[in-house]
Amino acid sequence: MRMSELRQNLATKEWVIVASERAKRPHEFVVTERKTCGEGPVWDASCPFCPGNEEADLEVLRTPNSGQWQVRIVGNRYPALTAGGDLERQYAGLIRRISGFGYHEIIVEAPEHNTCAALQHPTDVARVFRTFIERAWMVQRDPRIEYILFFKNHGPQAGASLIHPHAQMMALPMVPMDVRVRADGARNHFDEVGTCVFCEILQQELEAQTRIIAETDHFVAFAPYASVSPFHIWVMPRTHLASFFHIPADEVEDLGRIMHTVLRKLYVGLRNPDYNYVIRTAPVRDLGAPYLHWYITVVPRVSLAAGFELGSGIFINASLPEECAEFLRQVDVSQNGFFA
Amino acid sequence: MRMSELRQNLATKEWVIVASERAKRPHEFVVTERKTCGEGPVWDASCPFCPGNEEADLEVLRTPNSGQWQVRIVGNRYPALTAGGDLERQYAGLIRRISGFGYHEIIVEAPEHNTCAALQHPTDVARVFRTFIERAWMVQRDPRIEYILFFKNHGPQAGASLIHPHAQMMALPMVPMDVRVRADGARNHFDEVGTCVFCEILQQELEAQTRIIAETDHFVAFAPYASVSPFHIWVMPRTHLASFFHIPADEVEDLGRIMHTVLRKLYVGLRNPDYNYVIRTAPVRDLGAPYLHWYITVVPRVSLAAGFELGSGIFINASLPEECAEFLRQVDVSQNGFFA
Repeated sequence: MRMSELRQNLATKEWVIVASERAKRPHEFVVTERKTCGEGPVWDASCPFCPGNEEADLEVLRTPNSGQWQVRIVGNRYPALTAGGDLERQYAGLIRRISGFGYHEIIVEAPEHNTCAALQHPTDVARVFRTFIERAWMVQRDPRIEYILFFKNHGPQAGASLIHPHAQMMALPMVPMDVRVRADGARNHFDEVGTCVFCEILQQELEAQTRIIAETDHFVAFAPYASVSPFHIWVMPRTHLASFFHIPADEVEDLGRIMHTVLRKLYVGLRNPDYNYVIRTAPVRDLGAPYLHWYITVVPRVSLAAGFELGSGIFINASLPEECAEFLRQVDVSQNGFFA
Repeated sequence: MRMSELRQNLATKEWVIVASERAKRPHEFVVTERKTCGEGPVWDASCPFCPGNEEADLEVLRTPNSGQWQVRIVGNRYPALTAGGDLERQYAGLIRRISGFGYHEIIVEAPEHNTCAALQHPTDVARVFRTFIERAWMVQRDPRIEYILFFKNHGPQAGASLIHPHAQMMALPMVPMDVRVRADGARNHFDEVGTCVFCEILQQELEAQTRIIAETDHFVAFAPYASVSPFHIWVMPRTHLASFFHIPADEVEDLGRIMHTVLRKLYVGLRNPDYNYVIRTAPVRDLGAPYLHWYITVVPRVSLAAGFELGSGIFINASLPEECAEFLRQVDVSQNGFFA
């Protein structure tokens, strides 16, 4: 019987309850209903993202420009926000609203209908991130945009309604409260201690080694000390940098490498679990250079947030981050037979 | 085609994107796979909460004390937090932890295995809330407890693993960050404006009437202006009061009445959707009397939070709160044939 503990994330100040009596071992989170991305047809006549079915009117950019595209960005057919119309703000008592101005776009990650990052080559994964950055530089020229969020929903439990591999971009006319609260926390830390709290965390994780999952020249992937759920992963650049969109061009190839490794370890080790990933980066007009540090957070959907999380903002994690990291370290991603 | 809009909750400062082009009408959220609570046996030999199967060692209190109990509180067999052991805090660099001290208890809401609040008499529902309060007064005598959270997970998608109707209590050795952020916001509002922000919201909702769902002598149920999801409901006392645990005894009966109405409207109107409810109340040692105002938030599980919500803290609500409120106002809860 393991006593549970409450852990706090030094950067986000979020608490999590970990490893209670209900704690599970990492292998208990392996998806039992086997499903691979590689199964099914490589092309689907009814898929709007498959080559030949492109909705030309929605296209924003494609790469490469000639020959078969490898990555393509299109406007969302059912956008949550749209760039048409004016940006209007109305504040009157209870009523506080902004017109639904913004950009909501889909990044089609590959021409193949049945692939995913874990099955692609690291170079293909890097191309997706490079395309994110290219699009972000275009979008942030719009002076009304204050925050750009790239994220991915992989699998139905993570909110994906289409199989064809795709990520999304939402460009917002304001900085989300969550982003602001975290930035304020990081600035307070810098004011008190004189260092970037994320650099500090990364340094301590590298010294401890117990939660490290993978390393490359420029990036480190680790299970956060206060992981909010089993197999929660942070992928962080070793060098201090506030904005994902300012990443040096030669490091993007390496980002593709570590993300490929991380997502392939999840795919092989847990048998293709549903997951979300989100790129946490600085607001476009408030780079907060010395105290913000961009990173990617990956959250597999292997547990369910319920009333307690809703009421407290505290997550219950029925696993130990140290055990999850060890489990993932030992997953061999060089093998070809994934579910062997 | 409706243009979407961003709405901010005046009290919580949370933003939500509502009613985009993907907007749905209220009836589209009706649960199609019909399932009633009333089906199935009234007693289950394998249910630990059914009369005759009581785990006596875990019992904390029962009411009434003699004869057949109607509500019973038991320790959780697999608690996330336990009251045994010392409350220890360790802060060293990245490491910030508190031992898993606290109380995690189950409130069995009825002896019947196959009932739920929507099928009970309002008096039964009131008895559950009265038992919450009775237990809270016992638990808060423990000086190590700073926050007491009562919540309910109804149905598997809301996190309930057992059918027998039950709620939960978590008593925590610290004030959750979310609670503190909201309290700070409410205090700032009081400092600026001189009024309780929740009283202000309630007043404006009563004037507007468009989002009101039900009213009783002491309570008002309404769809918040910035509802985070379809059929999101706040049930709020008309009279300013910071702490749920200080509610006058004669008002608890009325609370049972309005909660019965609200949950029955969901049950009848949406055909028994899964939902969570949470009682948001002041910290036990920081009642913040003039600026905090307790209420119950009810969130039906009819949509899915995904990468965007994870990355921004902003919810996308594919419905209009005004339409959801109107839909629920028109649900007749006096009828007996629920799914007629």
